[in-house]
This record gives sequence, C-alpha cells and structure tokens, in this order.
Amino acid sequence: MRVFVLLPVKLSEAKTRLSNIFSGEERAELVLCMLEDVLDSLRGLDVVVVSPDDLRKKLDYDFHFILEKEKGLNIAVEQANKYAIDNSADATLFIPADTPLIKKSHVKEILRLGKKHKLIISPSRRCGTGILFRRPPDIIDGRFTNTSFEDHRKEAALRGVKMHIYDSFCLSLDLDTPEDLKEFLLHGRGTRTYEFSISLVKA
Amino acid sequence: MRVFVLLPVKLSEAKTRLSNIFSGEERAELVLCMLEDVLDSLRGLDVVVVSPDDLRKKLDYDFHFILEKEKGLNIAVEQANKYAIDNSADATLFIPADTPLIKKSHVKEILRLGKKHKLIISPSRRCGTGILFRRPPDIIDGRFTNTSFEDHRKEAALRGVKMHIYDSFCLSLDLDTPEDLKEFLLHGRGTRTYEFSISLVKA
Repeated sequence: MRVFVLLPVKLSEAKTRLSNIFSGEERAELVLCMLEDVLDSLRGLDVVVVSPDDLRKKLDYDFHFILEKEKGLNIAVEQANKYAIDNSADATLFIPADTPLIKKSHVKEILRLGKKHKLIISPSRRCGTGILFRRPPDIIDGRFTNTSFEDHRKEAALRGVKMHIYDSFCLSLDLDTPEDLKEFLLHGRGTRTYEFSISLVKA
Repeated sequence: MRVFVLLPVKLSEAKTRLSNIFSGEERAELVLCMLEDVLDSLRGLDVVVVSPDDLRKKLDYDFHFILEKEKGLNIAVEQANKYAIDNSADATLFIPADTPLIKKSHVKEILRLGKKHKLIISPSRRCGTGILFRRPPDIIDGRFTNTSFEDHRKEAALRGVKMHIYDSFCLSLDLDTPEDLKEFLLHGRGTRTYEFSISLVKA
C-alpha cells in the first residue's frame, strides 16, 4: 500500500491566537518547529508538503513540495490529495502540521489500522479533525471546517463508509491558544517545539 | 493480578461550572449518568465506589461501597486505595467518574499494559490526570491537584518509578465546562450521559 502524507502549512499570519504571547516572526518560527517535529515522525514516507511559502530551503527533509494555488485549508489539502492520486497513491493521510506530540509509533499504528479500515479519523479539540486517513484518497471529500469532525462523519455516512476513530490525546492537542500551549509544555518535552517555546516563555 | 478500581463520586455541589446550563438536581442526575457509563465499562471487576452519598440504592451494580470519611478528592482516593490494600489488591486503578467516553476496551488495554508497567497515567484536560494505575497500590501517593499530571510525574521521579503514559482522547475528556459538554455531545452518542444531556439541552 503506497500512502502519501498530506501536510499543509503556512508561515505568515499563522497562529494569530498566540499573538499576545509571540510576535509574528516568533509564530512563524514556532510553525517551523512544529512542522519539523511532525516530519520527524514521518521519515521514510512520501510526504506532500503544500504551502504558499517556499520551504524547501528551510528544511532538511526529502519530501514532495507543492506550492499552494489558492488560500484555504480545504483547497490545500485537496490539492495535495490530487497530487497523491496523480502519483498512484493507494491512500492518503492528512496530518495537521501543528500537532508536535505525534510520534513515529502513532503513524505506524495508523498505517497498520489503515490496512483494515478505509477511513480513519482522530478527534481534535474544539470539535475538529486531527488526522484523516483515506483509502482510496477520494473515498470522501475533505471538510476542514470549524465543525470538521461532525462534517467528516456526515460525509462518511453520505457515502456509506464506516469511519474508524483513532483515539489519541497527543493527536488531539494542536497549538492554537495560550491554554493549548500551557498543556503542550506539560507533555512536549524532547520536541523542538518545546525547546523553542520554553525559551521564549522564560525570556 | 487482583486489581481494584477506585471511583470517587459526589452528587451534591457537583459540576458547579455547569450551573449556567443545568440546575443542581440536573447536575446530580448528570453525575449519576456519567457514573453508570463508567461502571458499564467495569463489569466483572472489583470496583470501590467512595462517596459521601449512599449510592447503593440508586445503582444496580455489584460494587464495594465505602462512605467518604472526609471531604476532598485526595482523601477519598486514598481511602479507597487503603480499602483495596486491606483486601489484598495487587494493583489499583483510579478512574474519574466523569469520563463517560471510557469503554471496556480501554479498561482491558490498561489492565494488559499493567502487567508490564507498574505505573500508568493518562492525561486529562487542563493539566490533570485521567486514569492512574498503581502496582502495588502504594507505589506512589495520589496527588489530585490542579496540576496533578505534573505532580504525579514528580512523585514518580522522587520514587524512581517509570511512568507509562496512556494516550487517549476519550479519557482526557471530563465534563467540567460548557465547552467540554459541547465536545462530549459530538463523541458521546450511545451513552446515558449523552441521552440525558441532549434531552436537557434540547428542552
């Protein structure tokens, strides 16, 4: 089974809900740290990074890089998904670039479950979607909204596809708000994101 | 391995952060629904319910019931833990009575992991502790504070005990705030807590 990981990321105007704590430049750096933590869990896999920014120079990883055509997370994910389909992917795995608690073991387990289940989703905070595994990649459309967990469930029901729920606290914790950051600092030791954030918080 | 599950619960003055949505009576009913959902995942196990309320008449379960001697979660947990020790428990598993997303499969997996690990903890929201497995029951003291995850980690380090982290979104979601309730309603279909809450929210 050939799986492509879909990883949308943008550096500018990112993480605005953290702007009381971090400057724009710091937030862009934070996004890069999180992305690298996520990429560390993905070594050896086909990873499609889709972004409006040219990240190839910034990162020492071997990934597929595509430039975002239009603004919007849904468009970016579907652009990467189409790229994967065009490159004969059997399945795709969307991973949010801001979940630095993800580990190689999570990815391995999701891919193992992906042999059995065609559609896997993990819950994220605030009614969102963490990861989204689709086999084949067009089994359902991506619905990355404010209520994306429910929207993906509806989409699955509409298509008659059974949805397997991957239960993980680590994958549910994205870093959007100061409260998220506080919780992350409790669990994120050993990550680049932790080192970077703690240095700023302590400064 | 004989494991006792420790389940502290109180009906009065419970869930005060939900008092804008539910009356005191409704909150007591909500607590009972959550407790029953949790108990459903525990059938066949030794469960010690510790409470200031006499719950035996309210619940059709076969459990050990002990009356809380003094107020406070820490005291209640340690009272139940002592009861377990006095009854020759090899290990204890604290489970918060307000995590209705817990399933039999979680408990089974934790008990399986408990054969390998002496200390297992799951993260809860707002820097808290979800479940706490201890083998033997006095391997560390319970520290149920506002920063209990970190406090349990410190306690483990002090005793030189390795802490295994059980990664679960379901076990991290307790029901304290209106936001928790909103998220719970998204994931909790099929539970008594869901049926009860949705009937009140819709009313």
